[in-house]
Amino acid sequence: MLSNKGRLFIISGPSGSGKDTLLVKLFKAVPEIKFSISSITRPMRENEKPGQKYNFISKDEFENMIKNNELLEYNQFLGNYYGTPKAPVIKAIENGDDIVVEVDVNGAAQIRNNVPDCTSVFILPPSLEALKTRLHDRGTESEEKIRERLLCALDEIKRANEYDYVVVNDDIDTALNDLVGIIRLDRLKIDRNLDLINKILEK
Amino acid sequence: MLSNKGRLFIISGPSGSGKDTLLVKLFKAVPEIKFSISSITRPMRENEKPGQKYNFISKDEFENMIKNNELLEYNQFLGNYYGTPKAPVIKAIENGDDIVVEVDVNGAAQIRNNVPDCTSVFILPPSLEALKTRLHDRGTESEEKIRERLLCALDEIKRANEYDYVVVNDDIDTALNDLVGIIRLDRLKIDRNLDLINKILEK
Repeated sequence: MLSNKGRLFIISGPSGSGKDTLLVKLFKAVPEIKFSISSITRPMRENEKPGQKYNFISKDEFENMIKNNELLEYNQFLGNYYGTPKAPVIKAIENGDDIVVEVDVNGAAQIRNNVPDCTSVFILPPSLEALKTRLHDRGTESEEKIRERLLCALDEIKRANEYDYVVVNDDIDTALNDLVGIIRLDRLKIDRNLDLINKILEK
Repeated sequence: MLSNKGRLFIISGPSGSGKDTLLVKLFKAVPEIKFSISSITRPMRENEKPGQKYNFISKDEFENMIKNNELLEYNQFLGNYYGTPKAPVIKAIENGDDIVVEVDVNGAAQIRNNVPDCTSVFILPPSLEALKTRLHDRGTESEEKIRERLLCALDEIKRANEYDYVVVNDDIDTALNDLVGIIRLDRLKIDRNLDLINKILEK
């Protein structure tokens, strides 16, 4: 039984949680889920396309969005802005679509203030050892950079308790099933079914 | 990823919601789920066995349980007591087992006061028409009795908003999948994973 409105799902997870691979699998498995495209002001990289994961806009455009309250959350990092535009998320929810926003713990906290009626999921590595191994296995970064990423990951995990659900990404297919289940079963929550209950009672 | 403790699931649904058939299928599909056996003081019927759905005890025994605060909820109906013993539920949760208690809306409210950390599911018929048809289709009761059951069902549905989830029992296999999903995914809720998060952080 489907409720009419869609829902916003916030997904976060530290570097090494395998969140990105999991999200790619999620959108293949459940193509009707919408994905929020971030607006950012840093230059486009060679392997990127506009409108895929990011919309590349100017600083002026971004600052106008801030001024007009058109963002669900935003952040500044190394002189560039990163943010989640409000309009596409609200439109998806009104259309009855579920929409996923991938953000860090700070972005998640900002979004919860703007859209309290959302569901948030934290992707967790199975253990500290697994996290360390995954950060090392990339093989492209210095020890110092890896150490920095690890501390950053631990800071994020400290705030996992702000989320509604935890998905442990040990076996990726299990994690995918868990994530799909969380999104699908959200439609059974009582606050998404009050219309149906009233419909039965009103007749 | 399993958390250590089990969880109490309250399941309610009016006459005509198909709740009983659904529960029989649930315990076949997921035999590791425990089922809470009610203590009652009415005489055993011919088709009943002690310890299956009910434990048949004396009024004195029941009143002793009330006095010793050994019940999660109880009720009196036509001079007999009906109640949910506390000990087996607490034991199941401590053992890491999920346990289902089937009660009406009044019993559910009492249990929530005693075990706030539980998850409750209301089984709903798909429509008022379906509810009426199902109540008529039993074919064993007078029009007056059916009308009484219908009013009673509507009174219960009015309190569905006290529950965490709604499962619409239109297609029984879909409803079963929904119910199994709710019970399984409950283990991903943040409050059941704080130990795991702390374990990663403490090392």
